[in-house]
Amino acid sequence: MIGLSSYAGVMENLTNSAEEQRPSSLVIHVLSPSQKSGSVGGFVLVHAGAGYHSESKAKEYKYACKRACQRAVDQLKAGALAVEAVAAALVELEDSPFTNAGMGSNLNLSGEIECDASIMDGRSLQFGAVGAISGIRNPVLVANRLLTEAQKGKLSAGRIPPCFLVGRGAHEWAVGHGIAPCPSENMATKFSLSAYKRNKRKMELAEKTGQGSKQAKKIRQSSVTENGPGSLDTVGAVVVDLEGNVAAGVSSGGLAMKHPGRVGQAANYGCGCWAENSCNLNPFSTAVSTSGSPFLASEERVLGGVIVLRCCRCVEAEPTPNIQGILVEFLWSHTTESMCVGYMSAQDSKAKTHISRLPPGTVPGQSLAIEGGVCRLMAAAE
Amino acid sequence: MIGLSSYAGVMENLTNSAEEQRPSSLVIHVLSPSQKSGSVGGFVLVHAGAGYHSESKAKEYKYACKRACQRAVDQLKAGALAVEAVAAALVELEDSPFTNAGMGSNLNLSGEIECDASIMDGRSLQFGAVGAISGIRNPVLVANRLLTEAQKGKLSAGRIPPCFLVGRGAHEWAVGHGIAPCPSENMATKFSLSAYKRNKRKMELAEKTGQGSKQAKKIRQSSVTENGPGSLDTVGAVVVDLEGNVAAGVSSGGLAMKHPGRVGQAANYGCGCWAENSCNLNPFSTAVSTSGSPFLASEERVLGGVIVLRCCRCVEAEPTPNIQGILVEFLWSHTTESMCVGYMSAQDSKAKTHISRLPPGTVPGQSLAIEGGVCRLMAAAE
Repeated sequence: MIGLSSYAGVMENLTNSAEEQRPSSLVIHVLSPSQKSGSVGGFVLVHAGAGYHSESKAKEYKYACKRACQRAVDQLKAGALAVEAVAAALVELEDSPFTNAGMGSNLNLSGEIECDASIMDGRSLQFGAVGAISGIRNPVLVANRLLTEAQKGKLSAGRIPPCFLVGRGAHEWAVGHGIAPCPSENMATKFSLSAYKRNKRKMELAEKTGQGSKQAKKIRQSSVTENGPGSLDTVGAVVVDLEGNVAAGVSSGGLAMKHPGRVGQAANYGCGCWAENSCNLNPFSTAVSTSGSPFLASEERVLGGVIVLRCCRCVEAEPTPNIQGILVEFLWSHTTESMCVGYMSAQDSKAKTHISRLPPGTVPGQSLAIEGGVCRLMAAAE
Repeated sequence: MIGLSSYAGVMENLTNSAEEQRPSSLVIHVLSPSQKSGSVGGFVLVHAGAGYHSESKAKEYKYACKRACQRAVDQLKAGALAVEAVAAALVELEDSPFTNAGMGSNLNLSGEIECDASIMDGRSLQFGAVGAISGIRNPVLVANRLLTEAQKGKLSAGRIPPCFLVGRGAHEWAVGHGIAPCPSENMATKFSLSAYKRNKRKMELAEKTGQGSKQAKKIRQSSVTENGPGSLDTVGAVVVDLEGNVAAGVSSGGLAMKHPGRVGQAANYGCGCWAENSCNLNPFSTAVSTSGSPFLASEERVLGGVIVLRCCRCVEAEPTPNIQGILVEFLWSHTTESMCVGYMSAQDSKAKTHISRLPPGTVPGQSLAIEGGVCRLMAAAE
């Protein structure tokens, strides 16, 4: 039997210590306790991309986050482990045509959709990932299936099961494991197709104008991803389940007009997501999902976002000896103009959604917004 | 003008502190100085796989390492940067039909060759990688080309150049950049084809015998990669050039009978190799290349190997104010039965090669061998 207390209300603004920068925002949501018993626990935090969210689309992104949280909580209430709840949340985010993941992903240079996704289970430290996969509606389900198949142990004749598959081989493995193929053209949207055509024209113009001219330079500098879904690179989810296990996952359609076969951080071990349960050496369980590329050593402006969940069983959270408590701290942070997040505990009747924005007048890539909160999960000790 | 001192001769044996384990070996090669001036500097360390090297094949592996070192040193003497020397060394290791990289790579489940490779430049921190690439004789040249293309900056219309390409897209990008395709059948060897047929029979037998029987269990446990080239997973190289820049690279044909599209650590950022020049915060430049999988959280026996190079400009190495000195420390370590390495400075007339083995009676995966050495590079200050 699990009860849950949640806290809300206090907000605090801190400023960034770097003098030359505009203040960054740090907002902390700490909520007043409303303890109930008799319900199951767990907590999910998702994001629908760090980039630029126009006011007109804000509703759609929030709605996707809301549904993703609900799906994860439904799983948790049914007794699923954290990793299953992460997969469920990401399926919902992939299915939204507004996110750059699964349905409505950016098209590559050949006008095809190729997706990256990965998932990590903090309990087993198992990892599953797919890169540049086409014709699969929910890439995260393939990543998750790779993870669960690997947990079954070796294949015939002692072969080590794969945990990272790419391209055609990934597609064939998925279909061979009962995941239905989805024609690529069904995954493109009116919006992604028109963005592709616009970008194609931009590229042709840039290449025609030549390298030296002022106009060419201007065109080179204007990103093909500006204001398109490409500026929202990735969706992600982090979850703690009622047993205190954590998991993290990430899914992305990658950059608009990328070269076919390009794999981004969402599929890379230790890059797109990480989850690690507490152990003897570390009392904290941690789950992280990132957006933005760690490969860009040469980029002047680092544009990215991250969601983090950290939890521990600790004294504060254990009011009586027969109640096990888990204190969950969570945050989101981004250097992009905005980031759309949602979070929900199994106790909540609906998810909270929020579009976090850099403080007015600050420059993306040079400023940072951090917001977060805490929540307390309580369970009767067995 | 660069001179170089090298040191050789002293060997020291240490034992592992873990009581329950058999002693591991630590061998240190420290060589007597033989300073010469007027020649160019630089140092390379390579390995041709951590696994099991039969006495009968030892000569071939050593020969491949020797040639790889020579190629790297030729590059260094011609004034190439560390990253170019790494690529040159790996080309030679890939071209050997005895290594599981490039020519003679393991065949996958479909009887095809799919290779992984990556390279990192410690000066720029740029990284290039290919995964599951077919029909290219030297995968490391594609990884290196991705790295150099990325250093040129953005593509038309502000697109970020790729640093990690997989599968068909990787092949097409390579050919589009002037790298000649090589029919897959030309890359297979008599040895890799017969290993494939043997493994295929083993798998069919294992699957026919059913899951429950004792015999099936025995077959499941006997790896398809035993004593084949698959037990030598990866080749690698680390280099410091005459300017003190470091670089690292890795190339692999992956596991025998792997699923098509499977990508191993050799292609993964931060997994297969790492290189980082010294900076204000860290006086050491470091280059590392690994073999064996970090994903195998569930494996009982961790089988792997690593080569490491670390160097610094320090007082010891600077005998007079107008001589710049670089002290290079290098090591190789493995938990596999054996590892074949070669190393050479630009001052040496030929490479030293060596098959490092676990101490007699120790168990692979439960014991560790570490060997290494130091060498001193000296250059007239400019």
